[in-house]
Amino acid sequence: MSPAPNRPDALRAALSQMGVDGFILPRGDEHLGEYVAPCAERLAWLTGFTGSAGLAAILPDRAAVFSDGRYITQMDQQVDGAAWERLHITRTPPAGWLAQHGAQQRIGYDPRLIAESALRPFNDAGLTLVPLAENPVDQIWTDRPAPPCTPCVPQPEAWAGQASATKREAIATSLRAAGEHALVLSDPASIAWLLNIRGTDVPYTPLSLSFAIVHDDGRVTLFIDPAKVTPQTRDWLGADVTLLPPAALEAGLRALAPARVQVDPARNAIWFMQVLEQAGATVIRKDDPCQLPKAIKNPTEQEGSRRAHLLDGVAICRFLHWLDENATRTTELAAAEQLNGFRNDCPDYREESFPAISGAGPNGAIIHYRVTPESNRALHANEVYLIDSGGQYPFGTTDITRTIWTGPGAPDADVRDAFTRVLRGHIALARARFPKGVTGHALDALARHALWEGGLNYDHGTGHGIGSYLSVHEGPATISPVFRPVALHAGMILSNEPGYYRPGAFGIRLENLHLIQPSRVGEANRSFLEFEVLTLAPFDRRLIDAPSLSAAETVWLDGYHARVFESIAPHLQTPARTWLAAACAPLHAG
Amino acid sequence: MSPAPNRPDALRAALSQMGVDGFILPRGDEHLGEYVAPCAERLAWLTGFTGSAGLAAILPDRAAVFSDGRYITQMDQQVDGAAWERLHITRTPPAGWLAQHGAQQRIGYDPRLIAESALRPFNDAGLTLVPLAENPVDQIWTDRPAPPCTPCVPQPEAWAGQASATKREAIATSLRAAGEHALVLSDPASIAWLLNIRGTDVPYTPLSLSFAIVHDDGRVTLFIDPAKVTPQTRDWLGADVTLLPPAALEAGLRALAPARVQVDPARNAIWFMQVLEQAGATVIRKDDPCQLPKAIKNPTEQEGSRRAHLLDGVAICRFLHWLDENATRTTELAAAEQLNGFRNDCPDYREESFPAISGAGPNGAIIHYRVTPESNRALHANEVYLIDSGGQYPFGTTDITRTIWTGPGAPDADVRDAFTRVLRGHIALARARFPKGVTGHALDALARHALWEGGLNYDHGTGHGIGSYLSVHEGPATISPVFRPVALHAGMILSNEPGYYRPGAFGIRLENLHLIQPSRVGEANRSFLEFEVLTLAPFDRRLIDAPSLSAAETVWLDGYHARVFESIAPHLQTPARTWLAAACAPLHAG
Repeated sequence: MSPAPNRPDALRAALSQMGVDGFILPRGDEHLGEYVAPCAERLAWLTGFTGSAGLAAILPDRAAVFSDGRYITQMDQQVDGAAWERLHITRTPPAGWLAQHGAQQRIGYDPRLIAESALRPFNDAGLTLVPLAENPVDQIWTDRPAPPCTPCVPQPEAWAGQASATKREAIATSLRAAGEHALVLSDPASIAWLLNIRGTDVPYTPLSLSFAIVHDDGRVTLFIDPAKVTPQTRDWLGADVTLLPPAALEAGLRALAPARVQVDPARNAIWFMQVLEQAGATVIRKDDPCQLPKAIKNPTEQEGSRRAHLLDGVAICRFLHWLDENATRTTELAAAEQLNGFRNDCPDYREESFPAISGAGPNGAIIHYRVTPESNRALHANEVYLIDSGGQYPFGTTDITRTIWTGPGAPDADVRDAFTRVLRGHIALARARFPKGVTGHALDALARHALWEGGLNYDHGTGHGIGSYLSVHEGPATISPVFRPVALHAGMILSNEPGYYRPGAFGIRLENLHLIQPSRVGEANRSFLEFEVLTLAPFDRRLIDAPSLSAAETVWLDGYHARVFESIAPHLQTPARTWLAAACAPLHAG
Repeated sequence: MSPAPNRPDALRAALSQMGVDGFILPRGDEHLGEYVAPCAERLAWLTGFTGSAGLAAILPDRAAVFSDGRYITQMDQQVDGAAWERLHITRTPPAGWLAQHGAQQRIGYDPRLIAESALRPFNDAGLTLVPLAENPVDQIWTDRPAPPCTPCVPQPEAWAGQASATKREAIATSLRAAGEHALVLSDPASIAWLLNIRGTDVPYTPLSLSFAIVHDDGRVTLFIDPAKVTPQTRDWLGADVTLLPPAALEAGLRALAPARVQVDPARNAIWFMQVLEQAGATVIRKDDPCQLPKAIKNPTEQEGSRRAHLLDGVAICRFLHWLDENATRTTELAAAEQLNGFRNDCPDYREESFPAISGAGPNGAIIHYRVTPESNRALHANEVYLIDSGGQYPFGTTDITRTIWTGPGAPDADVRDAFTRVLRGHIALARARFPKGVTGHALDALARHALWEGGLNYDHGTGHGIGSYLSVHEGPATISPVFRPVALHAGMILSNEPGYYRPGAFGIRLENLHLIQPSRVGEANRSFLEFEVLTLAPFDRRLIDAPSLSAAETVWLDGYHARVFESIAPHLQTPARTWLAAACAPLHAG
């Protein structure tokens, strides 16, 4: 599985020609995105490591790959230990490693691939950093794939709910109010939202890779491969959107000088600031102004999400029924494929919104487990199986996790205890009513309280934002133990996914998506918000310790199950329908 | 009640002599403290306003007093509207008011009375600010009281639990580790903790007003009126503490140059930074390093707090019994005096830890109500009475709020609903187990959840720190809707005081103090904390809607009440003892 072993040395030769001694290669692409195109998989090509987070550092006499705790085992398997040290990124930070082994050397980096904040530790470590005009990996990667070139297609207003011109005018108004002349966007999701376009350039997220400059009169310059833009899309974008090839981006940025240009330093590579400041523009660092309006879904997007969740719920319920009958005759891979097949029966289904996490028994305890043919495990009788998956529909994105008991015996008391604590946390958050202005961080403890009571916890956030036929992980709001000063707003869609993981034994996670709604309850002088549950699929009753639920928790669960049955049953045939009726029966009905 | 009306004009004449046009006068003293000595009540002397937060701004042709929402009515009553505009400090910020009316003028301020951050808005507003060498109010306040001069007394190790030399060595070690040479302290509570001394210079908090310089070898220079220091205290402080009069402070600071000097800009007036920087010292801005160790009580302090709470609980339970028999034959003032009388029966009791809040009916809805002879209200039958009070004992400080139904009828359903939601929030926080590293902010929602569910809330924090025979409001941790990045630690004492206030009708608050303890529950790789309840007094059963409590909530309440009875009953006589038995009976026992 390792790449050709001479690649580090070929890279060293290229670096030497460029006048530097070392190089820092992060995993991200020019858009700093979560999913990257094959042509941007430089880290994987160079080192063999395919994890979603990592960095390589190379010096004349040594080299290292760094990743976090999730990927230590995978890194050891994929990366050649003779050529690369394989290191834990927080225990041995790359900047410290470079300072220790290459303090006196000139370290190159590709400014198009790294954010200002990500470069800061290297600067702080006193390294001599040299921005390179070209990426040295691209020089030696002779069979590098071409950049993706899939059609950029309109996202019709029937799904987007708001005209691009209206969105652009709102951004332009805020630019003018701040005395700023332009805004630079590298995040293809922001551009997709702003221009009501989509694409298939990267897996899982319907993006068309591009860059954009938004001017203070609402016009936009879109830097995109012209081969992606069909005549229909050209018409759709209208006269106020000028198209230029990506190669024109640098000149386009330079031409902005001496303007005041708004740039989000977390969502644009440091190269943008360098080019703008060199050209004489004033860079105004602010959060990408598309993030908040993109996160606050308009009524059309809300209705689209409900529709997507109904379609997705039908597929999930068919799958859960199938699983109930085949739990001990399948594998992790086959089960995930089966679920994808049920989703594919819906003509509106486009693709998975992320690679499904399908983990049986101990594999379920690996929080970011991704089943491979090598790791693929048969589901056994009497174990816990966790499946976290999602779908892209042109009017909404879904994300759901269910944890299932394979039977036929009853689960141990401690498994049911843990499951029930996770469920009680899930219900506490689902039932929460909370004042306007509260952050997701302030609600996080509600989802953990029942686990904490038992001395248990989980090492991940409780909720993330979800796009509208966009990324399944969307900012700016989260429900997390990490404080972020972002208030929750009506219209945001957030996941509710507490969990519990016993290493080597089993994993539990229960995830629904919630739409934030204004509450009708509240004193005259106070505004409250609450959650509308979007996801429609039953929780496995076999894993619930019913006497541990309070009356209010049982009422919530029975009400939710009744709603699932009412919504999904009309779209099912027997015997799946019969199965669903039993799965959704009131808890104390047996 | 207003002061002599010529004071603003006398002040203007003094300002003119000093070469400035205007003046900013905050309410705080040289220690930026909550309770100030009479000699530092400049704002009250000048304007008549006695609230605990406020600021005056004076210009040649106009003047204004500013305070927050709590004090608007009081300001209107106390301050002469002919001489002063009376303004809401957040709606009409003083800096904006000065910029509007005195933009071209020279505005003086006393740098000894204002923190850097408090001065910043005035700088940001573009004002010409002039630090004055002397306070102009002090020039015209001819009968200004002398600074307090009460004995500075040792806080014995039997109560402090740790020798001052040990504390000083820890601070000195951290100074040396950071390459810093000295630390400046203005907060008399930090000095009291560090040197194991107490005093009676200000009401409610046993402080000896002084300043200190801690050197990196553990020696301390204490700037204190020598008349306060008895020979016994001089011995107690030891040879490593040098005493100098407060007049020597400026020279002492100057003599530090060119050292690196640590100063907390939130707890030292801007004058300290100005003097040090002018003298050529390097000012290192950091949080006062006494704050965290002072907040984390050692085992001796923990045991002292338990003892203080037992003594205080006896007084509270005697009071609650008395109130039960006299609820309609007393007033707010008389009831607070009665409680103070019961506390005074204990020889260890020193004084109130803050002015008691004693509010009947609608007065209970005024969150920061302070009963005066003018506002004093008789307690009526069938209303809600709130009393928030605390005591200083030489080994611990207490703070407790109870809300009582005066009877003899039963409360309305909505009063019981609100009380029960407050109680459920109080219990949820009291029962919480939570991982190490969590902040108080992350727990705040637990105390509000039941209120939020009903569309109710309260506009104050849920918990504050409490000193060990020190201030009843102590940092750095809080349990609050405002995020502060301070993790909760075992040994901290925090209040648990959710509430609900219906303006014009009634107020509810239920407050116990909690000591944070390590939990014995928790998976092998996780450390959890939980609360030990220190306060010992029953909650009024007449206000509880028992069917609304979950089984777990009822178990907690019954367990707490059983512990209250067990602890307090041996110290009571009949009939108080009989009363307590009934007040502490299990909820479903009738």
